[in-house]
Amino acid sequence: MRRICVVVASRANYGRVRSLLSAIENAPGLSLQLIFGASLLLEKYGNAAEQVEADGFTADKRLFYILEGGTLETQAKSTGLGIIELSSAFAELKPHAVVTVADRYETLATAIAASYMNIPLVHIQGGETSGNIDDRVRNAITKLADIHFVATEQSKKRVIEMGEDPKYVFNTGCPSIDLLASQNIEVDEDQLAEIKGTGHQIDWRAPYILMVQHPVTTSYGDGFGQTQETLKALRKCNNYQKVVLWPNIDAGTDDVSKALRVFKEDADGEGFSYFRNFSPLLYNMILANAACAVGNSSSFIREGSFLGTPAVLVGDRQISRETGKNVLTASYQAEDIFKKIMRQVMTPERVSEKIFGAGNAGIKMSELLTSLNPLKSKL
Amino acid sequence: MRRICVVVASRANYGRVRSLLSAIENAPGLSLQLIFGASLLLEKYGNAAEQVEADGFTADKRLFYILEGGTLETQAKSTGLGIIELSSAFAELKPHAVVTVADRYETLATAIAASYMNIPLVHIQGGETSGNIDDRVRNAITKLADIHFVATEQSKKRVIEMGEDPKYVFNTGCPSIDLLASQNIEVDEDQLAEIKGTGHQIDWRAPYILMVQHPVTTSYGDGFGQTQETLKALRKCNNYQKVVLWPNIDAGTDDVSKALRVFKEDADGEGFSYFRNFSPLLYNMILANAACAVGNSSSFIREGSFLGTPAVLVGDRQISRETGKNVLTASYQAEDIFKKIMRQVMTPERVSEKIFGAGNAGIKMSELLTSLNPLKSKL
Amino acid sequence: MRRICVVVASRANYGRVRSLLSAIENAPGLSLQLIFGASLLLEKYGNAAEQVEADGFTADKRLFYILEGGTLETQAKSTGLGIIELSSAFAELKPHAVVTVADRYETLATAIAASYMNIPLVHIQGGETSGNIDDRVRNAITKLADIHFVATEQSKKRVIEMGEDPKYVFNTGCPSIDLLASQNIEVDEDQLAEIKGTGHQIDWRAPYILMVQHPVTTSYGDGFGQTQETLKALRKCNNYQKVVLWPNIDAGTDDVSKALRVFKEDADGEGFSYFRNFSPLLYNMILANAACAVGNSSSFIREGSFLGTPAVLVGDRQISRETGKNVLTASYQAEDIFKKIMRQVMTPERVSEKIFGAGNAGIKMSELLTSLNPLKSKL
Amino acid sequence: MRRICVVVASRANYGRVRSLLSAIENAPGLSLQLIFGASLLLEKYGNAAEQVEADGFTADKRLFYILEGGTLETQAKSTGLGIIELSSAFAELKPHAVVTVADRYETLATAIAASYMNIPLVHIQGGETSGNIDDRVRNAITKLADIHFVATEQSKKRVIEMGEDPKYVFNTGCPSIDLLASQNIEVDEDQLAEIKGTGHQIDWRAPYILMVQHPVTTSYGDGFGQTQETLKALRKCNNYQKVVLWPNIDAGTDDVSKALRVFKEDADGEGFSYFRNFSPLLYNMILANAACAVGNSSSFIREGSFLGTPAVLVGDRQISRETGKNVLTASYQAEDIFKKIMRQVMTPERVSEKIFGAGNAGIKMSELLTSLNPLKSKL
Repeated sequence: MRRICVVVASRANYGRVRSLLSAIENAPGLSLQLIFGASLLLEKYGNAAEQVEADGFTADKRLFYILEGGTLETQAKSTGLGIIELSSAFAELKPHAVVTVADRYETLATAIAASYMNIPLVHIQGGETSGNIDDRVRNAITKLADIHFVATEQSKKRVIEMGEDPKYVFNTGCPSIDLLASQNIEVDEDQLAEIKGTGHQIDWRAPYILMVQHPVTTSYGDGFGQTQETLKALRKCNNYQKVVLWPNIDAGTDDVSKALRVFKEDADGEGFSYFRNFSPLLYNMILANAACAVGNSSSFIREGSFLGTPAVLVGDRQISRETGKNVLTASYQAEDIFKKIMRQVMTPERVSEKIFGAGNAGIKMSELLTSLNPLKSKL
Repeated sequence: MRRICVVVASRANYGRVRSLLSAIENAPGLSLQLIFGASLLLEKYGNAAEQVEADGFTADKRLFYILEGGTLETQAKSTGLGIIELSSAFAELKPHAVVTVADRYETLATAIAASYMNIPLVHIQGGETSGNIDDRVRNAITKLADIHFVATEQSKKRVIEMGEDPKYVFNTGCPSIDLLASQNIEVDEDQLAEIKGTGHQIDWRAPYILMVQHPVTTSYGDGFGQTQETLKALRKCNNYQKVVLWPNIDAGTDDVSKALRVFKEDADGEGFSYFRNFSPLLYNMILANAACAVGNSSSFIREGSFLGTPAVLVGDRQISRETGKNVLTASYQAEDIFKKIMRQVMTPERVSEKIFGAGNAGIKMSELLTSLNPLKSKL
Repeated sequence: MRRICVVVASRANYGRVRSLLSAIENAPGLSLQLIFGASLLLEKYGNAAEQVEADGFTADKRLFYILEGGTLETQAKSTGLGIIELSSAFAELKPHAVVTVADRYETLATAIAASYMNIPLVHIQGGETSGNIDDRVRNAITKLADIHFVATEQSKKRVIEMGEDPKYVFNTGCPSIDLLASQNIEVDEDQLAEIKGTGHQIDWRAPYILMVQHPVTTSYGDGFGQTQETLKALRKCNNYQKVVLWPNIDAGTDDVSKALRVFKEDADGEGFSYFRNFSPLLYNMILANAACAVGNSSSFIREGSFLGTPAVLVGDRQISRETGKNVLTASYQAEDIFKKIMRQVMTPERVSEKIFGAGNAGIKMSELLTSLNPLKSKL
Repeated sequence: MRRICVVVASRANYGRVRSLLSAIENAPGLSLQLIFGASLLLEKYGNAAEQVEADGFTADKRLFYILEGGTLETQAKSTGLGIIELSSAFAELKPHAVVTVADRYETLATAIAASYMNIPLVHIQGGETSGNIDDRVRNAITKLADIHFVATEQSKKRVIEMGEDPKYVFNTGCPSIDLLASQNIEVDEDQLAEIKGTGHQIDWRAPYILMVQHPVTTSYGDGFGQTQETLKALRKCNNYQKVVLWPNIDAGTDDVSKALRVFKEDADGEGFSYFRNFSPLLYNMILANAACAVGNSSSFIREGSFLGTPAVLVGDRQISRETGKNVLTASYQAEDIFKKIMRQVMTPERVSEKIFGAGNAGIKMSELLTSLNPLKSKL
C-alpha cells in the first residue's frame, strides 16, 4: 500500500486536485494522506478547508504558515515557515510520495521539504508558462520533482526540454477539467443562493460579467491602479451585473483589496456584487454562464477554454500561457479593457476546446502512482 | 553604484568566492555587501568566519540558521529558517543583486529569499553534475537565477539546454582556481605548523595521503560503513602518513564522524593525523603535495585537475562530474580503494588541466556585474 | 552613551511609549534604537508605523512576525517567530537595555529574546491586573525583567510582592498620560476630518458613543456573540452617533470583525461610523469628548480616569484592573449594557483622577535609564 | 479520560519525570501523550531518546528545534522555534494538560506554547533558586503555570509568595528521587561495563571522583578557563580515578567541551575517563558510589542529598539552591577546589536526607492530575 501525501495549500490548489483525491481514495493500492496548509485554512480567504471537509475529505495535518503583511518579504518568510512545518509532518506521516500542485510559494515549500527528505516528489502542472515570477518557481519545482503530471502537450515538451527523464513525464490533462466534465454547469439558483455576497443583490439568470483580478507579484506596488482600471471599465458595462471575487493571498494583495474596498465604499459601482469565495463547483458554474470573464485568473484559460467562456485577460500575469480561442488580451487601460469586453460579449457561439485534458486526469494519475516503479526518477 | 550581496554559508563556499569578493571590493562601480551564514559561523566546523575576517572582509550580517540533528528533516528545516533570516537581511540591505554559490541547502535558501523578493539572483557553478541530491538543488537554483557564472564549457551547455537565456550564461571559470593560480603551493612548513591536528604528528615533507570523505545524502544511513572501508584501505598504506579532514555538515555527518572517532579512539590507525579545518590556501597546498587524495570531495576534481594531484574518488557522490585525468574512481570496498590508491601513487608525472578556468574568474564576474544591463534576465 | 532599544509592536504600544521615545532622544546620555514589529507594520491594523514616522521617529529594524490565522495556535507561533527575528536584531544592535511594554504576546517575545541574550530588560506596566490571559503574560515578563516602570502605587506593591527587588521598581506613572497631559483635547474638526471612516458620516460636534471591543482570548470562540450584544445595546441609543473602532489582532479577532462586518453589511445600524485606526492624539481627543465609551479597551481605565470620560466596561477582559470612578461594569447582555450606558450619559460632571500618573513618566524613565547603576538587577 | 502531555526535552528532564510517566500510564483516569524534543533527540548528547524507548515509552511526536551555535542568540532562537513546533503538536494532540519540567529554555518554549493555547500548564520544580539565569526562566514559568508540583517545602513557600494560588501548589517531592529510592545503587559491574568511555579504562570498584561541569550562561565566555581550573584540581587527586561527563547543551557548551578536549588530547590527564551520557539509573549508581562529586550539576544537590554523596559545588551556577549537608562550595580556583575535594573524601559517614522527597512523587502527581477540578487555576 503506497501512502500518497497531497498538500492542499489554497482554494485554487483544491480545484486542481479534487478529482485526484477521490481517485487515490478509490485506488486499491494507494492510501491518501491529506495536509491542509497555508491559505486553505484562513477565514480571510473563505476558509476553503471547510469545503474540502464538506466534500468528505479529512485532514491528517492542518498547518498554518502564512505571515501577515502581504509583502514580498513576508511571502518569502511564509515559504520558509512552510518548509519547517511540512518537514515535521512528512517525518511523521512517512509518505511514499508527496504531491504538490502548480507554481506558487506554498507549492515550493512542499517541494523543498519533500525532496530534501528523499521522498519522491510528484508535480502537477509543470511546463506551463505564465510570464511572471510563477514561471521561475514552477520550473524550479520541475527540477526538484521525480514525476511530472502535466496538462498539455506543449507542457510535456517543455518539461522534457528542461532535461527531465521522458519516462517520468505524463500528459494526464488537468484534474480541474475532470471536475468540470462531470458536473452540472447549468445555473442552479438554489445552490447559488447559498453563497452570500455583499453589494448588489445578484440575479444569476440575468447577464453578468465575472471579475477575478489577482495581484501581480513582479509589478508589486502597482496593484491599486491596475485594479482601478478594470473597475472603471466594468462600470461602463451598464447592461451587465458585475460579479467580483476578492483576490488571492500573493504579495500585493492588500493593494488590490484596497482598490476594491475603496471602490465599494464610495458606492461607486452600482450593479456590483462582491464575493469572498466559491466552491470549485459553483465557481465553474458561474464561469460557465458569465457573459464574459475579466481579470487575470488562470481559470479563464484552463476551465475557460473547455467551457468556451469569452474572457479578457488583463495585463501580463498570464502573458505567456498557452490559451484557447476564448481569450482576448488587454493592457491595463480601462479603455482597452472595455473595448475587449464589448467584443467578447458579442461572440456568437461558444466552442469547447480540450487543450487541458478530457476529464480523466485524476484516474490516470492514480493509476500511474500505483504502477510506476520505482516511484523515483532521480538520485 | 551597484550593491552586490554575497552570502557565504560554509567554508567550501568561501573557497569558491574569495577572489570574487576581492574583485567586487576593487571594482569602482560595485559595492560589496557580505553575509556570513549557516556553517561558516559554527565552531564545530572550524569557525571559518574568523578566516574570512582575517583575510580582511567584514560581515554586514551574521545569521545562524542550522538546526542540530544532522538528519534529512533538520536539513530541510535549516533551509526554511535560512529563508526567514535571509529575507529580513535582504529587506534591510536592499542589494541590486544577490550572489549564491553551488548546490547545497544553504544555497537554495539564499536563492529562494532573493528571487521571491524580486532581487536579481546570480548563481555560481550551475550546470555541473555530481550524481546525487545536489543535482536537483543546483538545477532548481538555475531555474530561479537570472545570471549564471559557470565554470566549464559543458556546464554552460547544460544550463542553456535547461532553457536559460544564453545571453545571461557566462563561462567565467571557477573562482577557486583564481586562488590556486595566484598562491604558492610549495610546502611551507612554518604556515603548516600553525594548524594543529590530533593523532599522529605529521611531517609535511614526508609522503602523505589526504582523506576527505563527506556523507552522501542520498544513501543516508550508510556513512558509518562507507567511511570504515576507506579507513581500512588507508591502514594498509604503510609507507604513507595519512591526513584526515573531518566531514562537512550534510545530513549523515554524525555517521561519518562516528566512524572516524571510533577508528581514532581504538588507536587503530598509526600514522593518522586528524584536522578540523584548513584555510583554503593551506588546503590547496596540502592537496597539491599529497601523494594521493582519497574520498569524495569535489576539490579533488576541481582544484585537483588544475594541480594534477592523483585522486581516488570513492563511491557515487561525484559520480557524474566532469573530471580530469588525475582521477580514478573506486567502489565502497576497501580492497578496491586500496588498489586504486596504489595505482595513483605510482603516477610518474603530474599534468595541469584548465577545465575549471584559467585563474581570472573573479575579475570576469565583477566586470559582468558592473556592465550587464539589465541585471535581470527574467520577470 | 547607553543604547536603549525600544520595541514598538502595535499601535497600543506606541501610545504607551511615545513620550518615552522623545525623552530618550533628548537625554544626553542615551541613544535610541527603535524596532518596529508585529502589527505596527500591518496595513490591516492601519499601518501605525506610518504614524510613528510622521512623528519624526525612524526605525532601525522593521520585523514582520505575525502569522495569519487569528487562532490561539497562530498567536503562539507568532511569539516564536518574534523571538527568532528579535534575537537577530538584538545581536546586531547590541543595546545596553531593551524596553518592552505591557502584556501581550509580542511583548513576551521581546522579553524572552532580550533576557536570553543577557541584555537588561526594562518592563513598562508591570503589576497591573486585567483578569485574563494577559495577567499570566504580564507577570511572566515581570519575572524576566530587571527594571520595572509601573504606572500605579498598587502595581508597585504587586511587583514587589512577586519577589522583585524594590530598588528596581519605580512608579513613574504611565507615559500614555504624558501625551494626554500635553495635548489639546478639545474637538478639532480640521484634524478629525482627516480620518476617514465608513458608514454614517460623523459630526464630531454632536453627541456620540465610542465603542472599542477587543477579542477576549480566554473565551476564544465567543467573540461573535459578545460583540453582537454590544452592538444591539448601541442600536438602542438613538440619540447618539456611534463611533466604532475595529478590534486588535488577538486570537479571536476574526470573530469580532465578522460580527461588525455582518452588522454593518446588514445596514442594521444607522448612525454607526466605523474606523480602522486613529493616531494616539486623535484617539485621546475622541475619547475625551465621547458621551460614553463602551467595550473593553484598557484606555477607558487609563486615559479615561485622567479625562473623567464615563465608560461601560463589558465582560471580563479588564475585570481585575484598578479603575477610577469613571467606570461602570456590565455583563455581555445587551440589556445590561444599555442600562449602564444610560446611567453613564447622565453623569453630571467629569472628574480627572491621577491614578496612572501626572504626565511626566517619559522624563522620569529616561532619567532612571541614564542614572541606574548597574542597569541590571538579576544574574 | 484526561490526556496528559509530557514534553521531555533533555536527558536531565527525563530523569526528573520518569516515575511520573509510569504513574500516568498506570492511572486509570489518565492517558499519556509523550513528546520527545530538543536535545533528547540529538546524537551529540547521547541520543537519550533511545534510552526512553528502551524503557518502554513511545513518542507521539519527535520535534527538532535546537539551533547549532551554542550562543545566547541561538539559544533564544531555539526557544522560538520550539514554540512553533510545539504549538503544532498541541493543536493536534489536544491534551487536557501539558507538563513541563524545571527551568531551561526548552521548558519555557513548552510553557509558552501551552499557556497561549489555553491548555492548563503543570510545572514541576518551581520555586527553587539556583542563582543564575535559570531563576528568571523558572519564575516566569511559575507565573504562566496553573498547577505547581514542587520538590521542597521552601520551594512551596516561594511559589506561594510569588502570588500563586496555594490550592494549586503541592509539595510532591521530586520524581528523580522516586527512581533513586526504587533502584539498586550498588556497583553493578555488568551494567556499567556496557557504557563505553574513552581515555583511562575505568575500574568501577576502585575509588573515583565524578566530574560534571556545565556552562554557566550568565558568565558566558568564561567556560574554558573555569573548566581548566577544575581539571587542574582533579589532576592533583592522584589516588583516585576521574570520571568526566561531557556538558549539556547550554550557551557556552563549546567552551567547556573545548577545555575538556584540549586537556584530553594533551594526554595531560592520566586516570581520566570520559563519557558522553549515562542512563539515569546508571548515573545514580555512579553518583552513589563516587568518593566525591565535583562540578556544578544540580544532581549533586538533589540526588546527592538523598544518597549522602560528598560533593564540591564549583562556582555560582547553583549558588542559591537549597542544599543538604553533603555539599561544600568552592570558587573557580584550582587550589580551592582541590582543598574542598580533600575535605570531602575524608567524610567518615554518609547520611541520607529527604529534602527533595521520599520517593513517591510520581504517584502523588498522577493522583492530583486525576482528581484536581478544575485542572486550571487561572483565567
